[in-house]
Formats: sequence, C-alpha cells, structure tokens
Amino acid sequence: MHLTFLGTGSGLPAIDRNVSSLAFDVTDSGEGVWLFDCGEATQHQILKTPIKPRKISKIFITHLHGDHIYGLPGLLSSRAFLNGTTPVDIYAPKGLQTYIETAFRISGTRLSYPIYYHTLTDGQVIKTSHFDIDVKELSHGITSYGFKIIEHDQIGELNVKRLKEMNIAPSPVYQQIKNQELTILSDGRVIHQKDVVGPNKPGRVVTILGDTGPVLGLEAFVANSDVLIHEGTYDKGLATLARQHNHSTMFEACLVAKAADVRALIINHLSQRYDAQMLHTLEQDARLVFPATYMAYDFMTYTVAKRAIK
Amino acid sequence: MHLTFLGTGSGLPAIDRNVSSLAFDVTDSGEGVWLFDCGEATQHQILKTPIKPRKISKIFITHLHGDHIYGLPGLLSSRAFLNGTTPVDIYAPKGLQTYIETAFRISGTRLSYPIYYHTLTDGQVIKTSHFDIDVKELSHGITSYGFKIIEHDQIGELNVKRLKEMNIAPSPVYQQIKNQELTILSDGRVIHQKDVVGPNKPGRVVTILGDTGPVLGLEAFVANSDVLIHEGTYDKGLATLARQHNHSTMFEACLVAKAADVRALIINHLSQRYDAQMLHTLEQDARLVFPATYMAYDFMTYTVAKRAIK
Repeated sequence: MHLTFLGTGSGLPAIDRNVSSLAFDVTDSGEGVWLFDCGEATQHQILKTPIKPRKISKIFITHLHGDHIYGLPGLLSSRAFLNGTTPVDIYAPKGLQTYIETAFRISGTRLSYPIYYHTLTDGQVIKTSHFDIDVKELSHGITSYGFKIIEHDQIGELNVKRLKEMNIAPSPVYQQIKNQELTILSDGRVIHQKDVVGPNKPGRVVTILGDTGPVLGLEAFVANSDVLIHEGTYDKGLATLARQHNHSTMFEACLVAKAADVRALIINHLSQRYDAQMLHTLEQDARLVFPATYMAYDFMTYTVAKRAIK
Repeated sequence: MHLTFLGTGSGLPAIDRNVSSLAFDVTDSGEGVWLFDCGEATQHQILKTPIKPRKISKIFITHLHGDHIYGLPGLLSSRAFLNGTTPVDIYAPKGLQTYIETAFRISGTRLSYPIYYHTLTDGQVIKTSHFDIDVKELSHGITSYGFKIIEHDQIGELNVKRLKEMNIAPSPVYQQIKNQELTILSDGRVIHQKDVVGPNKPGRVVTILGDTGPVLGLEAFVANSDVLIHEGTYDKGLATLARQHNHSTMFEACLVAKAADVRALIINHLSQRYDAQMLHTLEQDARLVFPATYMAYDFMTYTVAKRAIK
C-alpha cells in the first residue's frame, strides 16, 4: 500500500512539477491502483513510473478545476490502447461525465471497457472489498471533496503452535478455523476462533483532500490518519492570497495535522513560485509546528506502514 | 520563419515522443506563432522551448482525434495565467468549439482574452497580412485537413546607389519610392518604382498536412512547397495497417514529395513502435525514393530558408 505523487503543483505545469495527480496502489488487496485527480499529462508522468494504466480501477476527482481533470480523456483513451479491458469507476462531482463524454464524442473515441460514473455527495461512504471511504465536502469556491480511506481490519494470525498442541494436524481445516467463529472437527471437538487466532491486524487510514481553505470540523474528519495529504499552496506570509483563492497555507495544513494528531502530513498542491531550495526551508519551518511534515514532490512515493498489533 | 516539432508520435505519448503538435514561428512577419494541432501535454513540451504561449496567435487543428486536441483546454488556460491578453484564432473542423467550451464550463474556467473560432472548409483560403493559407480536405475517416501556407512575395530591394546617382538624397521619400508605383518629387521629377526597385523577393511555401491516407490530387496541392510535412505513421511493410487506419506509409509520403517535386519532406506522426535506430534506417530507405527526406523528432526545428531572388 503506497502513494506515488504524479503531480504536486498548482494551477499550471512547470518543468519539474506537474499539475495534480496522485496514485494510491492497493494491488496488495487485489483492488488495483486508484488515481486521485488527473491533471493534464498524468499519463505522461505514469510513463515514468511502474504503474500500468490498465491496473487503474478507480479514479477519484476531488473537484473539477482544469488542473485536476484535463488529463482524463487522454489517460482513459490510452488505457484502452494499452489493453485495458476491465471497468473503471469514476467518483467525481456532478459535471465530469458531461466533460468526458463530450471529449469522446467530438474526438470519435470509443473505449474497449466500461466507465461507471458515480456522483459524490458530502457524508457518503464508498465501500469496497477492503476499504470504507468517507467523503467530506471541503471549501474551495467550486465543490471540492476529501477522502478518508479506511482499510478494514484484517483477521489476526492463526496460532499454529497451539493447534498442533491440540493435535490438530495442518490441513484445509486450518483455513476454516481461522475464518469461522466456531468449527466442529470430525472428532466432535469444537474449536473457537478466538482461542486460536491472534488479535486483529488494524487497518490503515489514508486521507487525501482536494483543494481547500480552512474547514470547520476538518480535524475530526482526518483524525486517526496514518498519513494526511493536505494542500498547502502558499507559505504563511501569503495567507491573504490563500483566502482569496480558497486555498490553505502550509501553516494551516500543519495546524490541522497537529490538532488531529495524524501520524504524518504530506503538503501537496504547491505554488510553482517555490523552487526546491525554498521548499526545503519551508519544510523545516513546517516541522516546527508539526514534526512529521513532508513537502510533496513529483514521483515521491510514500509507503503506508502497517500498524502495530495491539 | 521556422518550425518546431512539439509532438511527432501517433496515437499515444511515449517517453521521448509526444502526441501531435507543431509550432510555426512567423514572428518575423509580426504574426506571432501558429500552432498546428495540440495533443495532450503540448504546453509541457512548450515549457522546454523558447516559445511563449502568449505569442501564439493562431491555432490550426487538422482533425479532432484526441491525440491532436486534448492539450487545448490546458494550453489555452495556461496562456491566460501567463499574461496572454491578445485574441487567439482557432481554425478547426466543426465540433471543436463545443469541446473547448464544455471543458471551460465544467471546470469554471474564464479566460482573459477572446477566442475566435473558424470552421474549416475544403478549398477555403485563409488570408492574413503576409500569408494566404489554402485548405484541403484529406482522407482520414474523420474530417481532416491540410494547410498550404503561402507567404506573399515581398517587394525587392531599393537600389540606393541608383537613387544617389539621380541626386536623390536619403530621406523618407525613399520609403515612398519603394512602396508606390510612382512618386513625384518636389522638383517635379517622376520616379517609377520599377526603375529603382529590384525584383520581388519570392515568398516561401510551407505545407502541413493532417493525418491522411493517399488522396487524389494531393501532389498538385503540395506542389511548390519549400517544405512538406506529411504523416508517415507506418513503414512500407505495414501498408495494410495504414489502409485500415486511414494513414500513410513513409513510402507513400515520399512518393507525394517526389511527384510534387517539393524542396524537402519531413515525415511526421510516427508510430511509437519505431525507436530512434529503426527510424534512422527508415530515413535512409526513404531517401532512396526522395533524397531530401527527414524523419521528425520531438524538439526538431527546421528553418525555412529564403528563396533565391530570380
């Protein structure tokens, strides 16, 4: 389970920092790769990574500004060229389907796989085999959403040593014992799952927010995140500009992370006015407020570590 | 007057070869930079060149396939961000305006400059201050056009030596003598332009074709070109594939160049299956048919040399 930042800039592309896109790889769970936003040239960025477009199973669009969506028609078309045959679910604010379908109609594009469009609403919970995804509306002038991706807890380890002490030899019955609350053996003995399975492995929580200014109650939404991806378009000195454009400062992102006591904060959607050296300084400043802060950069990957078993 | 190839591949982007776009710099004539097609990430390619998006004054779209238009919404938006304030004329097949306006409406984009849309038709002549542009419909399944850009002849050099021999001292009257058929001097003498101005400087001709299979009469259209940009998606061995997808082979492009006796041929829109080494070999093969053949590559520039004065 890891994140790959494909575009970490704001507004328009620069040589070393593309417009918004973030890939969340959940292939370990068998659920493919999820894309969060898809600015222009996201497919070009993907070419420089090990990500295969055909593995992208879900696309979440935080909001409909051009720097978050203009890469979609191209990526979806190329996915078909590159042997993509499985469906793609797209979760987005109302309007996206019209944009994509117009692009495809005008360009005479027909895909080799179906797209299922889902319109996002505030407070909704998207459920997949291994995750619940809480959706929260943010504050960006245009409708913008954040996603809290909550991995289900996984069942604990089977205590094989204990089973062998009970003279139960390894066999397919082990899988039953692990997965059922109660298993009756052929010799009549009753085995309770809780007696031979360790504590649950706790699921991880990854929260990815769209563009936003400060939002009441955001701390409660992002609480318990292993990693929070929060925009911080401007430095603290440009708070007025941040308010004008419905963005956050890096300082405000840190305050949210600190109040919510998340494990780590990655500040994303950085104004192209900052070069690498300036961002290094701003990262040091941010860590005075929230120590586990990282400034995003294109092609940065972040592995979401497993939680300790309690 | 020079060409910069921004994307020379076909269908989908590769690491070293983007989808279609070609910039034609006519800033010498004061008419800015003209863009021919605008595939996704054209603005990203432009970032790596000296071209300023605000200098782009005209955009010609050969046809509406995605790899030729998906970069438009982003480029046009960024042009506004980057202080573009002058109008842009877009010449395209019917449908493009709907695509752009839908993208802007959905993304809440408002530009700081006007766009004037012009729908192309076969046989039309677009006239600018220094150029006539002949438009020809090609053969690509979807409506596709070619453009023959004919620079106007320029008036010849003023024979200053001769004027001095005639005891006419350098003064603003020189400009009148050069530009008017007949000038009456203050001393009553009549000076005929033809007597003191050299022969016209002949205009150059650049022909840029959209995707196309073979077209009847194409040789006549491209005749007299200083440089012909012709697609050659496939090598000679893949003629069947070329017919299926309404494309040309490199060999067919050479035959057109040879029959029309153009000065130079640049083969463009190359299938991503060919690497640089293969294209080098294919270029050598092509030159057996038409010696002045060049295979296009991303960021290739080509200066259109002035014609000799007859």
